[in-house]
Amino acid sequence: MEQQLNLVTLGVGDLAQSRRFYTDGLGWSPEFEVEGEVTFYQVGHGLLLGLFGADDLATDATRPLTKGNTFSLAYIVQDRPKVDEAVARVRAAGGDVLKGPVVGAFGGYHAYIADPDGYLWEIATNPGFSVDDDGNTHIGSFDAEEA
Amino acid sequence: MEQQLNLVTLGVGDLAQSRRFYTDGLGWSPEFEVEGEVTFYQVGHGLLLGLFGADDLATDATRPLTKGNTFSLAYIVQDRPKVDEAVARVRAAGGDVLKGPVVGAFGGYHAYIADPDGYLWEIATNPGFSVDDDGNTHIGSFDAEEA
Repeated sequence: MEQQLNLVTLGVGDLAQSRRFYTDGLGWSPEFEVEGEVTFYQVGHGLLLGLFGADDLATDATRPLTKGNTFSLAYIVQDRPKVDEAVARVRAAGGDVLKGPVVGAFGGYHAYIADPDGYLWEIATNPGFSVDDDGNTHIGSFDAEEA
Repeated sequence: MEQQLNLVTLGVGDLAQSRRFYTDGLGWSPEFEVEGEVTFYQVGHGLLLGLFGADDLATDATRPLTKGNTFSLAYIVQDRPKVDEAVARVRAAGGDVLKGPVVGAFGGYHAYIADPDGYLWEIATNPGFSVDDDGNTHIGSFDAEEA
């Protein structure tokens, strides 16, 4: 299993308020957003910070969590067998598999696992996510049938 | 304020157990560790994942948080005036400054702020942290007098 973290998603109570803080307040430019649903900022080489409704994230991860403390770390791989392999590795390591792998609402094939403290990792294909040679991330729409 | 995230620190209940999960379980190699105190893994270009006692992290951030939900995102800058500038920007954006800027236990000059959902960002100088042209991170000891 590679040592990688591609995306940090913060579950937020009020997306408009959080967006104002990061975009208007800190002056950050979204890389991609769907109004009222999700906002992504590039915060490093191949790295995104996402703002997503805390309730939506908890539902997606099938684990209700306290508002303000719901977040996930994403490990993005190229194909479904790599998701299965990583999930098997996590299971063997004693990690708790909360969900999947299944095809998620966003079209990718994904699983949620919890580390020993309950920190959420999403292991997923995400064909809408790519990183070019300069580290620029791209995330957006894609053909779900190819996920 | 740059769009950047340099370090994700997970506050853990049992460092030895978490270290076993990531190192022995997932097969990840620590970039740097102080036995019984902290372990860092490189998880991307210029990006580290840290494991640190949840109680220690909560104490450092001057905010007791629930075990398993204590984590921080670090924004590392080159000098103290840049810490002050970023903190001023956050304050103007309505962010809550929980601590500092002050010289922290690790020797760097840092502040903890909370975003609208209470997510912790540490804004800091960390002269023990560097990233080379290939994205390899280095973190470790340094001369605290220069921080």
